[in-house]
Amino acid sequence: MPMRGRFIVLEGGEGAGKSGAIAALRADFARDGLDLVTTREPGGTPEGAALRRLLLAETTHDWTSTAELLLMTADRAQHVERVIRPALTAGRIVVSDRYVSSTLAYQGAGRGLDADLILDLHSRAIRDLWPDLTVVLDVPPEIGLARSQARLGNAGIDEGRFEGLDLDFHRRVRQSFLDQAAAAGRHGVVIDASRDKATVEAAVIAAVRAAVG
Amino acid sequence: MPMRGRFIVLEGGEGAGKSGAIAALRADFARDGLDLVTTREPGGTPEGAALRRLLLAETTHDWTSTAELLLMTADRAQHVERVIRPALTAGRIVVSDRYVSSTLAYQGAGRGLDADLILDLHSRAIRDLWPDLTVVLDVPPEIGLARSQARLGNAGIDEGRFEGLDLDFHRRVRQSFLDQAAAAGRHGVVIDASRDKATVEAAVIAAVRAAVG
Repeated sequence: MPMRGRFIVLEGGEGAGKSGAIAALRADFARDGLDLVTTREPGGTPEGAALRRLLLAETTHDWTSTAELLLMTADRAQHVERVIRPALTAGRIVVSDRYVSSTLAYQGAGRGLDADLILDLHSRAIRDLWPDLTVVLDVPPEIGLARSQARLGNAGIDEGRFEGLDLDFHRRVRQSFLDQAAAAGRHGVVIDASRDKATVEAAVIAAVRAAVG
Repeated sequence: MPMRGRFIVLEGGEGAGKSGAIAALRADFARDGLDLVTTREPGGTPEGAALRRLLLAETTHDWTSTAELLLMTADRAQHVERVIRPALTAGRIVVSDRYVSSTLAYQGAGRGLDADLILDLHSRAIRDLWPDLTVVLDVPPEIGLARSQARLGNAGIDEGRFEGLDLDFHRRVRQSFLDQAAAAGRHGVVIDASRDKATVEAAVIAAVRAAVG
């Protein structure tokens, strides 16, 4: 009987604290000798990393919403086939920074594309691989964007494609994450990420441990 | 009443002579004072040109067939919305070097993806814009690849992603173009492109003139 892996996704707007929470998860599971597969979208493969630069850093480019959706889905197709499915088949626990919920939030609620089109693509191109648990780190966009801008500026990273959009866009993204989590039943959980870092990370660890255990 | 443009596509394997035929078309129509909109896929927009480099020149990258299909379709979505539809709406004649027939030939027949998936994407993401005429420049792959390798080498261009595939791949691509043209009725024409350049270009001009006239 093959071992069964678990697929965990962290979602949330800019500056919600996903990277820090994933590092905390890694460290926590490492104490039990468990090596999590931690990855991200876009950019979880060498090919996807090049696409991530094209999508997020080339701010002179102005992709249509549909083209953006197809590029994000291309990144995901590559990521699922080369990284996520093989790791799950090997019984590993995979934790991804963003997945299809982000596409529904940013390209769907944010850009205004039909959820039907996004879900149809997910079904046909990704062959319906859904997370065991999606953890939404929820933070008001005003707070998240301020955090994110400080972080990007300090790191000298220019990935401003979404950070630069207006507050209404980010409010639609936030509401979509909350709606998706509400609809996902036991496969979704929302964590208040406006609290201090240690509290948020402890809550994420508890939620993931409960799902994996 | 708005003027009605015409959408012409040139298709064919590597080294079939599409670029030369498009230049000949431009020159021929220019004698009547008609300025054709000539364009190509992938890469008919600034965004698509960056994607073309990613797709064709980065030969260390190994995209899955599905991801490749999504990237080609992203390029097309951008191209249709920004270049082709606006030109057709303005009553212009658009001539594109490659379009959806290439996707059916390369990613479908060549890579083995379902034609249904490709056509479904074309319907949903491209909203079913089909050419008035697709001209297939037909040449045995042995001849076309030799021509193409000489041309790429001379120009110092490294776009070897498809040139490097085996002869069987290119035979499937050729057969797909022929089958598509046969199924397209008056919207498809096949021209024997193994003949000399001037003969082939005259045949292309005649076919396009008949469709546009």
